[in-house]
Amino acid sequence: MTIKTRGYATQSATTELQPFTFERRDPRPQDIVLDILFCGICHSDIHSARNEWGWTSYPFVPGHEIVGRVVAIGSEVKGFQVGDLAGVGCMVDSCRTCPSCQAGLEQYCDHGFTGTYGGEDKIGGTPHAVTFGGYSDTITVDERFVLHIPENLDPAAAAPLLCAGITTYSPLKHWNVGAGQRVGIIGLGGLGHMGVKFAHAMGAHVTMITTSPSKGQDARKLGADDVLISTQAEAMKQARDRFDFLLNTIPVGHDVDPYMALLKRDATMVIVGSVEPLKKVDGIPLIFRRRSLAGSLIGGLPETQDMLDFCGQHNIVCDIERISIKDVNEAYERTVRGDVKYRFVIDMGTLGS
Amino acid sequence: MTIKTRGYATQSATTELQPFTFERRDPRPQDIVLDILFCGICHSDIHSARNEWGWTSYPFVPGHEIVGRVVAIGSEVKGFQVGDLAGVGCMVDSCRTCPSCQAGLEQYCDHGFTGTYGGEDKIGGTPHAVTFGGYSDTITVDERFVLHIPENLDPAAAAPLLCAGITTYSPLKHWNVGAGQRVGIIGLGGLGHMGVKFAHAMGAHVTMITTSPSKGQDARKLGADDVLISTQAEAMKQARDRFDFLLNTIPVGHDVDPYMALLKRDATMVIVGSVEPLKKVDGIPLIFRRRSLAGSLIGGLPETQDMLDFCGQHNIVCDIERISIKDVNEAYERTVRGDVKYRFVIDMGTLGS
Repeated sequence: MTIKTRGYATQSATTELQPFTFERRDPRPQDIVLDILFCGICHSDIHSARNEWGWTSYPFVPGHEIVGRVVAIGSEVKGFQVGDLAGVGCMVDSCRTCPSCQAGLEQYCDHGFTGTYGGEDKIGGTPHAVTFGGYSDTITVDERFVLHIPENLDPAAAAPLLCAGITTYSPLKHWNVGAGQRVGIIGLGGLGHMGVKFAHAMGAHVTMITTSPSKGQDARKLGADDVLISTQAEAMKQARDRFDFLLNTIPVGHDVDPYMALLKRDATMVIVGSVEPLKKVDGIPLIFRRRSLAGSLIGGLPETQDMLDFCGQHNIVCDIERISIKDVNEAYERTVRGDVKYRFVIDMGTLGS
Repeated sequence: MTIKTRGYATQSATTELQPFTFERRDPRPQDIVLDILFCGICHSDIHSARNEWGWTSYPFVPGHEIVGRVVAIGSEVKGFQVGDLAGVGCMVDSCRTCPSCQAGLEQYCDHGFTGTYGGEDKIGGTPHAVTFGGYSDTITVDERFVLHIPENLDPAAAAPLLCAGITTYSPLKHWNVGAGQRVGIIGLGGLGHMGVKFAHAMGAHVTMITTSPSKGQDARKLGADDVLISTQAEAMKQARDRFDFLLNTIPVGHDVDPYMALLKRDATMVIVGSVEPLKKVDGIPLIFRRRSLAGSLIGGLPETQDMLDFCGQHNIVCDIERISIKDVNEAYERTVRGDVKYRFVIDMGTLGS
C-alpha cells in the first residue's frame, strides 16, 4: 500500500510545472504523514526544476518549505500527535551516525543528507527512486526530520522559515550575533529579509546593505536601523571597518572585496546564497585585518526547532505573497526577476480546485 | 646630531642594491640603538625594492628581519641593557592608542603601523622622510618595537623569526593549533618551513602540502609527519575533509578551492602569502562544510616576544644560507627562483669589508 498523492511536477528542464500524480510510502513506525497546507517557493526550487545545477532527474516535484497538519503517525512516534501543526524543510533523511549527524548538524552529514526533493530515496516504500517535494497534498517523513510549528504563527507565512528562515538564523547564532554588535545584511530578498528580522530580534544594530535605495526603505520597515547603498563609493568608504558580522545573501557569484572591507578586524562575512564561484576575492582585505570569509548551509534539525520556537516567541514570520498552485509558473518568472516581497507561498488547498 | 649609518639601497625599481650612507636619529629617552649583526632577506624586500606593490620611494633600504646587539639605550628604557641580543621585525612605530594597539596587535593599528622600511617616519630626527630598513650596520628603534632574542639561539638563524617566524606562529596560535589536530602547511619556502617547525612543536600532526615530492621529503626532515602532493588528484581526493587547520603560504594568487576541500567541517584555512587577488574561490566548499577562509598578518609585539621565547625553549630557528652583503643581488635572483633553503641572511659584519 502507498498513499496516492497529487502535486505539480516538471517533466524536463524546459517545461512548466503541471499536475502530476505519484505515491508516498505508508508510514513506518517512526514516520509521520502530513496533509500539506502551504509550501514556499525557494529560488533553489527553480534552479533545480530547470536543472541549472545539473543533478535533476524528471519528473521533478519541487518544494522544501512545507507546513501541514499531522494526519497519521507510526507506532514509535513520540513527539507528535495527529492534528499537530508541523513542518518539513530541506532534508528528509541522513545517516544519523556520522559526527555531524550525532551533533545535530544533519545538513553536513558525511554521507550526504537526503534532500526533500530530488534526493536518492534510501528509505523506499514507493515506486520512485528519488524524493518528491512539497508542491503536493501530502508527505510521509521520518519524525527526526519533522518540526513543530508554533500555533501562534500564520502557517502560510511560517512555511519559508523552513529554508529562508533557518539559512539566515543558523549563521547569526553560530557566529554569536547579539546586542552591542553592528551587523550588516547584504541583499534584500527571501533570505535577506529574514536576516534583518532575526538580527534585529537578537538585539544587534542592523544595517541593510543593498544597491537599491527603495529596498533600503523597505528594510527599515522590517527592522533595519540603517541603510548602506553599496553603489555609493563614499558611503562604502565611510563604512570601512564598521561591522562585527556580515550576512551575505547575494544569490550569485560576485566581487566580495567591497564587502570584506566593511568588516572590523577579526570579523566574519558569511556567504549563504552564492552556490557558485565568487567573482573576486583578494588576499589583502583578509590578511590586513585578519578577517574571515565563511559559508553556511541551512541548519540542523535541533537548531531549526530552536529557530521556530524563537519565531513563536518573537512573533516572527516571513513576508509572503500567497498564491494558487495554478499560478506557480508565473510566480517562478517573478521570482527570477526579483519581483516578490519576499517569498511566494503556495496554498495547497488550491490543488483540488 | 645623528648616527652615520652604512647600508645598501636601491635607487630605482630597476637598479640593483648598492652601498648607501644615511642617518639614524640619536636615541630619544625611549629609544634603543642596535649594532645590526644579521638581517634576513624576505620576499617582501624584493617586491618593495622593485616597487611591485607601487608604494616604494627611493632611495630604498630593505630589511625587516633584524638581529643585533644593544649599544645604547635612552634614559627611560626599562627592558633592555647595553649588550643584550635584540631584534626588530616589520614594525618600528604605531599609534599606541587605538584598540588594536592597546590589545598588542600593532600590526592592525587603525592608523597604520610604520613599516621598518619605506614607512612614513613620524618620529623624525633625521633628514629622511621614510624609514630605512635593516640592510645596514645600525638602527634606532623605540623600545616597544624591540624584541629580546634568546641567547641560546644562533643569532643569524634567529633573524628570519622576526618576519617568517611570527607570520606563521601567529595564525597557528590564534586558531588554537595543538595536539590531536591534523594541520596542513601549504607551500615550503621561508614561511612554510617555519610553519612545519611550529605546528610540529605545538604537538599537531603535520602534513606538508606541496607540488614537489622532493620538497615533501625535505619537509619530513623539518618535522612533517606526512606529505600530500597537491598535483596528485587521487591523493587530494582521499584527503578531503581531513584537516583541522590549513596554513597557506603560497606567495601568489592561486585557486584555493582544491585546498578548501581538504578542510573538515567548521575548519579554517589561513592565507599569509597571497597579498593579491586569489585566482578562484567558490562559494560551494565554504557553504557545504561551513568552512572559513581567513588571512593573517605578521603578529603584534607581545606575541612576537612569545614566539621568540617559544623558539628559545624548543630550540627553533630558521634554516638559512648566510651570505655577504656584496652577494645580496644574486640572492634576490635566487629567492625569486625559489632557490634557497629557506632564507638568506646577510652577515652585516661584511658591510665594512
